[in-house]
Amino acid sequence: MKQILVFGHKNPDTDSICSAISFSELKNAQGVNAIPCRLGNVSKETQFALNYFGAEAPLFIENVNADENGKKEVILVDHNERQQTADGIETAKILEIVDHHKFALTTDEPLKITADTVGCTCTLIYRLFKQARITPSKKAAGLMMSAIISDTLLFKSPTCTPEDVEAVKELSKICGEENYEDYGMKLLIEGTSLSDKTPEEIITIDMKEFDMNNKKVAVAQVNTVDVAGLLTTQAKLEAAMDSMSKKSNYDLFVLIITDIIKAGSYALAVGKYPELVEKAFNVKLENKTAWLEGVVSRKKQVVPFMLTASQN
Amino acid sequence: MKQILVFGHKNPDTDSICSAISFSELKNAQGVNAIPCRLGNVSKETQFALNYFGAEAPLFIENVNADENGKKEVILVDHNERQQTADGIETAKILEIVDHHKFALTTDEPLKITADTVGCTCTLIYRLFKQARITPSKKAAGLMMSAIISDTLLFKSPTCTPEDVEAVKELSKICGEENYEDYGMKLLIEGTSLSDKTPEEIITIDMKEFDMNNKKVAVAQVNTVDVAGLLTTQAKLEAAMDSMSKKSNYDLFVLIITDIIKAGSYALAVGKYPELVEKAFNVKLENKTAWLEGVVSRKKQVVPFMLTASQN
Repeated sequence: MKQILVFGHKNPDTDSICSAISFSELKNAQGVNAIPCRLGNVSKETQFALNYFGAEAPLFIENVNADENGKKEVILVDHNERQQTADGIETAKILEIVDHHKFALTTDEPLKITADTVGCTCTLIYRLFKQARITPSKKAAGLMMSAIISDTLLFKSPTCTPEDVEAVKELSKICGEENYEDYGMKLLIEGTSLSDKTPEEIITIDMKEFDMNNKKVAVAQVNTVDVAGLLTTQAKLEAAMDSMSKKSNYDLFVLIITDIIKAGSYALAVGKYPELVEKAFNVKLENKTAWLEGVVSRKKQVVPFMLTASQN
Repeated sequence: MKQILVFGHKNPDTDSICSAISFSELKNAQGVNAIPCRLGNVSKETQFALNYFGAEAPLFIENVNADENGKKEVILVDHNERQQTADGIETAKILEIVDHHKFALTTDEPLKITADTVGCTCTLIYRLFKQARITPSKKAAGLMMSAIISDTLLFKSPTCTPEDVEAVKELSKICGEENYEDYGMKLLIEGTSLSDKTPEEIITIDMKEFDMNNKKVAVAQVNTVDVAGLLTTQAKLEAAMDSMSKKSNYDLFVLIITDIIKAGSYALAVGKYPELVEKAFNVKLENKTAWLEGVVSRKKQVVPFMLTASQN
């Protein structure tokens, strides 16, 4: 029986890996010889979930080029766009897609697609398990639950739907990890862990420069569930921000430390004009930091207010 | 509650019309204000089904341009490609797609897609009714059954799947038309009826010219379930073929009358070299006609054999 390769997108996240494994299990139960694959390295978060539920990482594949056995047959999960998928896809036959993203898809033949506006592909895969009246293994249930928690930030993301929440509750019972909130926090902490990063790396993970009324301002952002842990290194972060400000002539360097669970951010302001932050958000900096309630988006909730404040 | 427009492709066939009506019924039952629409005229076949089951034709719409109420919200059934859909689609929001064709789709946002390699979109819509545990009305059941019969040529098409057959059997019970084969034949006869066409129109519905070893040959094809009815006008067809051959200097005019139920064709050959047909298919023409068993494709099963015969 011909092997069918099941994989998520390049630079795989937890949903892409867990979708490949759990959808392959469903297909196998339906008599299809499906092999879970991956197009890149497993992240720390994903590895935590794999270890927790005793699962192997999927098979790494370089491409899906046709070979002496002809066209490869593939199933895409958690993606559909050409530039996100395996090299050589134009020589393969796409049998099926399960995804929750926007679409940019062209095929030569009809195919099966299950897509919906839910928070996670694994929510759709669990729906397909239920429609097929097949109960996932404990391992697959645990992985699907992990993926949904990861993609929805434990239901905090605006992309989360009631079906995602319900799926996690049901899967937590199947996999035996009924305290899914505790497990989910551990998973997310692992996923946003900055423990292997230097202060210089942390402040440049996602940094942009802005001109604010002739002041050169850097605004960097980092997501974490462990703000307290990160702030224990505040002195080192400040030193790195100072050093970079001197090198790049920043008048102000603001690091937005976003707590993805509380859905708000600490601002850490270093440089000549910290009052810009105080004015922008109507807060008082203490020890160079202030809590910005509800602020998670630099583009929509930080930069516009600082620009306005810089004009006055 | 915002209206959502549900429509099939331009130049709509029975599946596009019946999908719009039946999927709107399902959406309405789920609390969505869906309005069945159409992008073109209803065919004779479709009108037969609408009349039979007491249904109205969907609302004709010119385009889905945004207006003073903002973006139109739409659901596409039985198609997904830009050039087959409503004008102004780039100003609308596509909420959902149900389809069984190849894909050429780009969206700005995630959406719901139900696609599969079945013979008819209405087979997928009936599947969605069942998944939602909602029983379609007699009218919707009759229309879905009609669409599946139409798209699969009463299960004779190579695109037909067991799910299509099963759907027709179940829908025939719901709509009370348990003798679906009798009804299906009537529907297909209506769909391929040539009664409103002149002999000149019939021989040019789908005619192509070929050069066969310096002979100018016309090969036309017409699909029907009523070969006998068509052959009662054989003299008129021959006169039209003769007349056109004189005008266009054809050495031979072959009309392939394909019986879509028996999946074979009568060849009617008029002109100087009827033996080309006899040689190509190893048959004897009687009264200028011969039955070609299993021949339904001009491209694959007629022209290559005539070309070969013309070389000898």
